[in-house]
Amino acid sequence: MRLSRYFMPVLKETPAEAQIASHRLMLRAGMIKQAGAGIYSWLPLGFKVLRKIETIVHDEQQRAGHIPMLMPTVQSAELWRESGRYDDYGKEMLRITDRHGRDMLYGPTNEELITDIFRSHVSSYRDLPLTLYHIQWKFRDEVRPRFGVMRGREFYMKDGYNFDVDRDSAIHAYNRHMVSYLRSYERMGLKAIPMRAASGPIGGDDTHEFLVLAETGESEVFYDAAITDLELGTRAVDYDDRAQCEAIVRKWTAPYARTDETHDEALFAQVPEAQRRSSRGIEVGQIFYFGTKYSEAMGATVTNDEGQVVPVHMGSHGIGVSRLLGAIIEASHDEKGIIWPEGVTPFDVGIVNLRQGDGDCDAACEALYGGLRAAGLDPLYDDRDERAGAKFASMDLIGLPWRITVGPRGLKNGVVELTSRRSGESEEVSAEAAIARIAEIYGQVRAAAMPS
Amino acid sequence: MRLSRYFMPVLKETPAEAQIASHRLMLRAGMIKQAGAGIYSWLPLGFKVLRKIETIVHDEQQRAGHIPMLMPTVQSAELWRESGRYDDYGKEMLRITDRHGRDMLYGPTNEELITDIFRSHVSSYRDLPLTLYHIQWKFRDEVRPRFGVMRGREFYMKDGYNFDVDRDSAIHAYNRHMVSYLRSYERMGLKAIPMRAASGPIGGDDTHEFLVLAETGESEVFYDAAITDLELGTRAVDYDDRAQCEAIVRKWTAPYARTDETHDEALFAQVPEAQRRSSRGIEVGQIFYFGTKYSEAMGATVTNDEGQVVPVHMGSHGIGVSRLLGAIIEASHDEKGIIWPEGVTPFDVGIVNLRQGDGDCDAACEALYGGLRAAGLDPLYDDRDERAGAKFASMDLIGLPWRITVGPRGLKNGVVELTSRRSGESEEVSAEAAIARIAEIYGQVRAAAMPS
Repeated sequence: MRLSRYFMPVLKETPAEAQIASHRLMLRAGMIKQAGAGIYSWLPLGFKVLRKIETIVHDEQQRAGHIPMLMPTVQSAELWRESGRYDDYGKEMLRITDRHGRDMLYGPTNEELITDIFRSHVSSYRDLPLTLYHIQWKFRDEVRPRFGVMRGREFYMKDGYNFDVDRDSAIHAYNRHMVSYLRSYERMGLKAIPMRAASGPIGGDDTHEFLVLAETGESEVFYDAAITDLELGTRAVDYDDRAQCEAIVRKWTAPYARTDETHDEALFAQVPEAQRRSSRGIEVGQIFYFGTKYSEAMGATVTNDEGQVVPVHMGSHGIGVSRLLGAIIEASHDEKGIIWPEGVTPFDVGIVNLRQGDGDCDAACEALYGGLRAAGLDPLYDDRDERAGAKFASMDLIGLPWRITVGPRGLKNGVVELTSRRSGESEEVSAEAAIARIAEIYGQVRAAAMPS
Repeated sequence: MRLSRYFMPVLKETPAEAQIASHRLMLRAGMIKQAGAGIYSWLPLGFKVLRKIETIVHDEQQRAGHIPMLMPTVQSAELWRESGRYDDYGKEMLRITDRHGRDMLYGPTNEELITDIFRSHVSSYRDLPLTLYHIQWKFRDEVRPRFGVMRGREFYMKDGYNFDVDRDSAIHAYNRHMVSYLRSYERMGLKAIPMRAASGPIGGDDTHEFLVLAETGESEVFYDAAITDLELGTRAVDYDDRAQCEAIVRKWTAPYARTDETHDEALFAQVPEAQRRSSRGIEVGQIFYFGTKYSEAMGATVTNDEGQVVPVHMGSHGIGVSRLLGAIIEASHDEKGIIWPEGVTPFDVGIVNLRQGDGDCDAACEALYGGLRAAGLDPLYDDRDERAGAKFASMDLIGLPWRITVGPRGLKNGVVELTSRRSGESEEVSAEAAIARIAEIYGQVRAAAMPS
């Protein structure tokens, strides 16, 4: 993309209403614009990252054998009365009355609707196991929305639901979700720690939250430092292999890691003192096994292999897709701006033309732009007629992990400057070498996305 | 995908509530399930087609230089009061009150919100031309929703908005939209005819609707048969070339083509009698140039190259993404079920195993399934333990354009049966030849999607 043809309205001033870094940086980088309290428009740069995160979530869910579908945002109140949650949910539920006076609501979650779909179409254990998921906009009418997309009212979320004939099979679904979530976060460049959680209004005893460590996190967290060394990396996972999934879950849940809601001082004291950590964390996902809570209330049953009619065992599993943008930025920024991990960066690399309008510089930039695109990369070329300082400031602010700077002096020596946003280090290389280097880096990102 | 692991709840009976073919077939093929009046859940097969259509629309909009973003579904009433449409819009607008008693609404369209974004960030002609678009769920509280996704209340739509410094530039944006829409419909296997339209509540004089011919269409249409012969095919379009875009628009708008709203008997009489056609049509898109209607009301101005402050010229341009599923099915089905065009089919090819559990048949099907996937294709393998008749009926119902049938008799002779859903014709070929043939067909579809 040529910046002169893009819409990326960066702000010089820090918006007064933004209290945390991610909110501030997303506004300043022209990624979002507030449309109402806790409601945002996703400007092109923000939308591009949102789609990348969505794509990673889709990939990893489908790799785990989970099936994508889509439920509507507006639901009728009827099903929620059946489960008993219509009255329980309180003021966070956005209630709507249509022109005929019917009670509806903007879905904050989808247990009722998915259970209704299941009971309408499935009646035999032979159709199980089944995990359906969707990524859809949801609404929770928070009293005091804040922190930008981290605690918005309209938010984009993946929620998935497993249906299994018994507890063992449902626990395997739970484990699949944990593994697929860990992989998703790793691909986003995030270290998210599974922590034993409290169940809240969805219900259920087995539940873990995934927390990203960041000073601005809403939860206090306590953990054994050993857990931050764990990494799935490129290991191949067979999601049909119960033992393998269980082993991974065991490994990731063995070290102590809890939020203030479930923290246990006595247990924590057993962690060697040098490894005890307390910090703050941002919740970016949660998985639940809640057994037959909804299936019993709503009559979602199957015939098992002995001919008995039994309620299905269910769980629900969420990833906050829009919230993840905020969490990634909280975990990865500096005083100049965002530092995107390669897995979710809106553009792979930025090109800064130090002397726009100079024939040689323009030609070199065009060749570089074409060469990067021919290599399957997605560059952002700052071809505006602006001072070098302004171009560097914009690039640092929007946080592309790599920058190639093209200027008259370098061109005389046949080199461009390749700079890492993360380390700040630069090296002078030929344009061809820069292209090859960037292609190699993103080739590794793609390879990690597709384990053998 | 193996059907035994998918969720595709086909129905044997025709649902009583469905009055038209697409609604009936989408319910029977397990593509959608009603969640409320005019509100649908998209089951996995339906969601897959929805995403394919969405992807084509994204592709073609970005090829035309238009920039994707995303506006929220819920909007505050304020901006609509500013444009004067809050009271005008009537009962079709779903009005919402939040917990603090603030007036909000579920967006039926986005002229106000996009104009607000524009005026907040753009003030110079140097940032123009600019076309922003999004694909988002919208809500119109129809009195009597019906015909499934064709006239639902919650629907998925692409809407785009161009901002230009003057009328000429805005007309070029209008032309770009017409060309990119024509290309989009062609890729979906649809013949959609641009017809001069009435402007309705959005306003503006220059407007065309795109209509797909189908008996169940809601509009009566009158046209010169010559227009149905026009095809863009694989011709390269340079969207920066005003003359080229205008020439295409001229060619497509020269033959008489109008809906009953704008029909002119005297003009129609000038069409040679042998070419006069009247029929019914389904609206699948509309483009508008409305000049400065919103920019004046809302103060969206730029400084032009003479230093004068002028209101921007705008247009808005919509494609009904969810509605298109219905339109495609209305235009392409028979008594057995849907017939998907290759460009939007949920799976590229179906594999029917005539004798599940037979060692040879199972092995041949597995090899075929693996071979098709290795060739970059997306097969659906019916590996259920069902009668051949039931498998054929399901495949015909869901309408994959190609089917490969594997049975013991054919395998003895080293052949499988390759069948076209459209023509019904079959031929016996080796499994390798079948894979090569299917790969060739979809290779052509992909090539048409990427003109030089």
